Amino acid sequence: STDAEVLFFPDAAGMPCRQHLAGKECRRANCTYAHADTSLVKLLRRIDAASKTLDVCVFTITCNEIADAVVRAHERGVKVRVISDDEQAHSTGSDLRAIADAGIPVRTDAASTHMHHKFAIVDGATLINGSFNWTRQAVLGNQENVVIARDAKLAGVFAKEFDSMWGKFRGN
Amino acid sequence: STDAEVLFFPDAAGMPCRQHLAGKECRRANCTYAHADTSLVKLLRRIDAASKTLDVCVFTITCNEIADAVVRAHERGVKVRVISDDEQAHSTGSDLRAIADAGIPVRTDAASTHMHHKFAIVDGATLINGSFNWTRQAVLGNQENVVIARDAKLAGVFAKEFDSMWGKFRGN
Ligand SMILES: [Zn+2]
Ligand SMILES: [Zn+2]
Repeated sequence: STDAEVLFFPDAAGMPCRQHLAGKECRRANCTYAHADTSLVKLLRRIDAASKTLDVCVFTITCNEIADAVVRAHERGVKVRVISDDEQAHSTGSDLRAIADAGIPVRTDAASTHMHHKFAIVDGATLINGSFNWTRQAVLGNQENVVIARDAKLAGVFAKEFDSMWGKFRGN
Repeated sequence: STDAEVLFFPDAAGMPCRQHLAGKECRRANCTYAHADTSLVKLLRRIDAASKTLDVCVFTITCNEIADAVVRAHERGVKVRVISDDEQAHSTGSDLRAIADAGIPVRTDAASTHMHHKFAIVDGATLINGSFNWTRQAVLGNQENVVIARDAKLAGVFAKEFDSMWGKFRGN
């Protein structure tokens, strides 16, 4: 049986308070953000736990909170790579430009079909995978799932696929 | 470590030959369909292996080959339930009507947000989950993944979420 954590969305409590996310006490009397460990908070903590590598392969990335966590990983020395869909990359609200501008290598499929995966591999050993695109609507509105499996074998299967796409999408 | 089978798409070999799928020898000299165990064939075999229950919770279902397998399960006495997205249900090519017409109970989210899951639970013990919508484009065009885990604990977590949605979407 898998040692997996399953996150379901939507997060009824809303977007997380940045103080709570930082592990600090929120002192704003009327703060309307969530101060609980929502599914998004649990996902962000997994990204923030990356210490060596972070391979992201996600169709749509528009949720600033998640994009910020990816950039934070890069800034603390984690080797980050991002694959996404080319059409989504150029759509309104996409965070791919900000991720690339931070110095993270980004590649896309450059095809009319969809690079439709929504997975990430943390430190080559933990697989984050499911229906969940990295968007605000997926956090707050949709029925979605993310399965986080600390499983080197499973992560390895996806890492091989990631590397294959990374080579294929060179120059895109 | 998980006892999981991982399927990646697209299937470069194309749609499967129905003879191959049925375990028979194809005698058509110029058959252009695939006679190999493609990812779609492996997925269809998992659905065809259902013997007691099949709970399907998939955003878009337009691939006739997969819809046919769901109907076949119903016809051999498997207790099938289907949850999908209401907007997708009414879009061109949706197989939800055919599934409902076969006598399978179907419920949708009836909301402007997306019932965006793409999972199924076979016999309460095997979880099929990933980025893969049950569409022809996902089979033949897109980069997609499906993780098939024979894991009663993981399947149970998703079964609980399925039952919760099934109750919530009553009457839709
Ligand atoms: Zn606060
Ligand atoms: Zn044939």
